[in-house]
Amino acid sequence: MRIIRVEHGGASYYGILEDGLVFPLRRQPGHDPLPLAEVRILPLVAPSKIICVGLNYKAHAEEIGYPLPQMPSFFLKPPSALIGNGDPIVLPSGMGRIEHEAELAMVVGKACRNLSLGEARECLFGFTCANDVTAREVQKADPLIGHCKSYDTFCPVGPWIETDLERLDDLAVRCVVNGEIRQSGNSGDMIFKPYDLLCFLSRVMTLLPGDLILTGTPPGISPIRAGDVVQVSIEGIGVLSNPVEAPAPEEKVLQ
Amino acid sequence: MRIIRVEHGGASYYGILEDGLVFPLRRQPGHDPLPLAEVRILPLVAPSKIICVGLNYKAHAEEIGYPLPQMPSFFLKPPSALIGNGDPIVLPSGMGRIEHEAELAMVVGKACRNLSLGEARECLFGFTCANDVTAREVQKADPLIGHCKSYDTFCPVGPWIETDLERLDDLAVRCVVNGEIRQSGNSGDMIFKPYDLLCFLSRVMTLLPGDLILTGTPPGISPIRAGDVVQVSIEGIGVLSNPVEAPAPEEKVLQ
Repeated sequence: MRIIRVEHGGASYYGILEDGLVFPLRRQPGHDPLPLAEVRILPLVAPSKIICVGLNYKAHAEEIGYPLPQMPSFFLKPPSALIGNGDPIVLPSGMGRIEHEAELAMVVGKACRNLSLGEARECLFGFTCANDVTAREVQKADPLIGHCKSYDTFCPVGPWIETDLERLDDLAVRCVVNGEIRQSGNSGDMIFKPYDLLCFLSRVMTLLPGDLILTGTPPGISPIRAGDVVQVSIEGIGVLSNPVEAPAPEEKVLQ
Repeated sequence: MRIIRVEHGGASYYGILEDGLVFPLRRQPGHDPLPLAEVRILPLVAPSKIICVGLNYKAHAEEIGYPLPQMPSFFLKPPSALIGNGDPIVLPSGMGRIEHEAELAMVVGKACRNLSLGEARECLFGFTCANDVTAREVQKADPLIGHCKSYDTFCPVGPWIETDLERLDDLAVRCVVNGEIRQSGNSGDMIFKPYDLLCFLSRVMTLLPGDLILTGTPPGISPIRAGDVVQVSIEGIGVLSNPVEAPAPEEKVLQ
């Protein structure tokens, strides 16, 4: 089942996507099934936290010069970085090379803590595609890994939540920029597997519905530039596509 | 003005603390001023993110063996780590030495982005005390800094939000364990100053009301053990006090 969150006629709601139609998850007056082209797809979730497991593909850890961790290693991205399918990745000004990182992401479905492997499946809502956008040159001078990962728009997620993903240990994980394949990995090469990660993380912290867990990126990271279109595709899920925009003129927000 | 969030008679609300009495911020029926001893103090905020600036006191960066950053460096703690004044810090099982880090914390008051230094004061709601509890041995094997910082209860914050803090550049920042002074620093030794940090961070990401910014810890970190009482005190604010508890028997949460 493919779940999306959409906006139409000023209202936002979750829907099941089937044969190009969006069926509201909870039927409400005025929310008849609509063609996908007629709704705006919103960011899928409002997570209390975005957990990014890193260094989870040996060849990627090597390409960025990090040692392989003995236990899963992770950092957090702020929820303010989240954007949806089709939303622009806005490059920050003066921060050097910005790179894509295609990742399989998990969406937590239930509040949970201290999960066993058997319980992990029950707590997972589904899977989606994510792009862990990274300011690579900032990363080299950023011992605590927050700055290089936290810019607004640096966490595209979508296009939907797939609740029935099979063959988790053999899925193509790809990033395509302007039609050219840049990353072409396989989920089977993960050092720590998705459900093991979910258990491990639930033993560190309470996970809540909507929390996102990114599972690491395969090798092939490369720069993105204004005007590019970046597509993360994961076999069995779909394609997350985002245009890349130049830095915005300094926009103030003060509310 | 000192602001706290309290629970009394099943209801939770914000209140102004004055002369030992709690005056509800928005007067509601049945919410007359109450003596502090009669209410339960709750975690002050429900942040969308907790940003922890690290390595912001030279002597602390040296004691943990990190190079001094050229720009502010930070990581994020998950909101699930948050506890209030008086709540227990629960030690995780089998994770080695756990240490306190006394820190001055800022509470964001308005949604903001791309702040100038002059605007920073206007966007700040106030200051409080925080303890950036850290699994130090995990940190040494944790290249991405998430695991060692993210356990539930690893972010005590309180006892209240002080809206009128003066002499920001000369405040004693202390940690006292069982009555013994362990950390005794001064906010004047920060490399990056609080309002500069607020500006810097607002140029990376949109800050939202309730977001917490921890400003780094002075030297003197040391282990905490079950049975200890850890007190973070900041001049002009007050004392955040938390008991330390042994690992809980494995408590399941699955909702």
